Amino acid sequence: MTTQQLIEQIQLKKSFLCIGLDVDLTKIPQHLLELEDPIFEFNKAIIDATHDLCVSYKPNTAFYEAYGIKGWKSLQKTINYINENHPEIFTIADAKRGDIGNTSSMYAKAFFEDLNFDSVTVAPYMGKDSVEPFLAFENKHTIMLALTSNEGAFDFQTLETNGKELYKQVLETSKGWKNSENLMYVVGATKAEYFTEIRKIIPTSFLLVPGVGAQGGNLQDVCKYGMSENVGLLINSSRAIIYASNGENFTQKAREEAIKVKNEMEEILKSRF
Amino acid sequence: MTTQQLIEQIQLKKSFLCIGLDVDLTKIPQHLLELEDPIFEFNKAIIDATHDLCVSYKPNTAFYEAYGIKGWKSLQKTINYINENHPEIFTIADAKRGDIGNTSSMYAKAFFEDLNFDSVTVAPYMGKDSVEPFLAFENKHTIMLALTSNEGAFDFQTLETNGKELYKQVLETSKGWKNSENLMYVVGATKAEYFTEIRKIIPTSFLLVPGVGAQGGNLQDVCKYGMSENVGLLINSSRAIIYASNGENFTQKAREEAIKVKNEMEEILKSRF
Repeated sequence: MTTQQLIEQIQLKKSFLCIGLDVDLTKIPQHLLELEDPIFEFNKAIIDATHDLCVSYKPNTAFYEAYGIKGWKSLQKTINYINENHPEIFTIADAKRGDIGNTSSMYAKAFFEDLNFDSVTVAPYMGKDSVEPFLAFENKHTIMLALTSNEGAFDFQTLETNGKELYKQVLETSKGWKNSENLMYVVGATKAEYFTEIRKIIPTSFLLVPGVGAQGGNLQDVCKYGMSENVGLLINSSRAIIYASNGENFTQKAREEAIKVKNEMEEILKSRF
Repeated sequence: MTTQQLIEQIQLKKSFLCIGLDVDLTKIPQHLLELEDPIFEFNKAIIDATHDLCVSYKPNTAFYEAYGIKGWKSLQKTINYINENHPEIFTIADAKRGDIGNTSSMYAKAFFEDLNFDSVTVAPYMGKDSVEPFLAFENKHTIMLALTSNEGAFDFQTLETNGKELYKQVLETSKGWKNSENLMYVVGATKAEYFTEIRKIIPTSFLLVPGVGAQGGNLQDVCKYGMSENVGLLINSSRAIIYASNGENFTQKAREEAIKVKNEMEEILKSRF
């Protein structure tokens, strides 16, 4: 999917919601556990109930790997289900990979070719040659960690280096990498003021924003400081939507939660564009 | 496996060699491709030919994920084969994972419980709460990236921060994390003098050292500057050993290459202990 197609989907659906599919067998409705592939069945039900309200789904690979081969099968069935039934959805493999060049190429193959995701999240610590192999794929997107929403973000990401915080250096340096137009960035929502500074460095890049809702971030503030002329935001919500209920009515409750966020987004888009 | 058991294996085998199982179907002997699981058959043959010469095997997960479910099965069969036949071997899942707390817990489950590796490599960018879930596992080891051997290492890892390079800050900060005695570190071999500074910060921690041989690092220098009183080094070699030949004689050639490295290590150990 091209960035332009993603922008068109946002305009069409009046939503820039990304739903995180972090499926934990201890948290899903118990009646699903009797089925052969509870993780896939849960995802399928959530997708059926919410695909018109969001522009993106983001399975977190950890939650699939934890169940071994069975989990990897659930991941494959989930991405295939989305690609076959909702090709307009922007898919994100939340994998946070990154390794030396030939190894990153293998990861890129895994997520862009074998699984056919539109994008994958990567970590910046190993630098240019650990990320460029991902950037080489046309119409695929590489979403690099910049400033995350967890407590540990302040261990290294905000350390002063060359007179600026490390995450700003990461943003600036990455702009010079080959095919950097295929970069998006993870920026947590916990401190909305950071977005002002970030937008000075990357005015139009798409930002994947976790941490709205459950982790305390505020949608209005994130949009106020972080929205670009092309929207430029994908706001992720995982637990607040997919675990809105763990009863028989879980799809209905997930839909209700997604509608709430989508309506708020529609209002914001109306006021801005 | 405990650190003490690893040290005993090094003393017993007179080797601190780790063999990287980065299996690429385009590089293995072509006659293996006719078999049902060429990746596993290749690994099994390499393990059978070298297990008395090394103390560790390190499959790199990217090379398995690139082949989807089939690859994940090969990985599982490989780790099971090692654990069943050579339980004295220290196994490393070279996965370079790292995510927010509950997600890192899932990765830890994947590698420590589901696959039963002794250790896993992780990236430090997301800080304390992205690594501590791994450290919580008893007798399991978390090998964190500090200074890598690739070109991109100099993009961020060596930036000056708080008056010291970032990788040194990473080492120092991590010493304060809960169960930090379960930490080991990845330190590339490309600049052996770095080890002197690193040993001032972490005098006894085990270091996993890639980049000897193919990437230009020198074993003598690494040992001179990096060896601790408990050896404290695992030197990784992947391509130079496993791809020593891609003919029918590949196991024999791999063994010959492993013997060369092992003999050099034995000499070094003799001169030091």
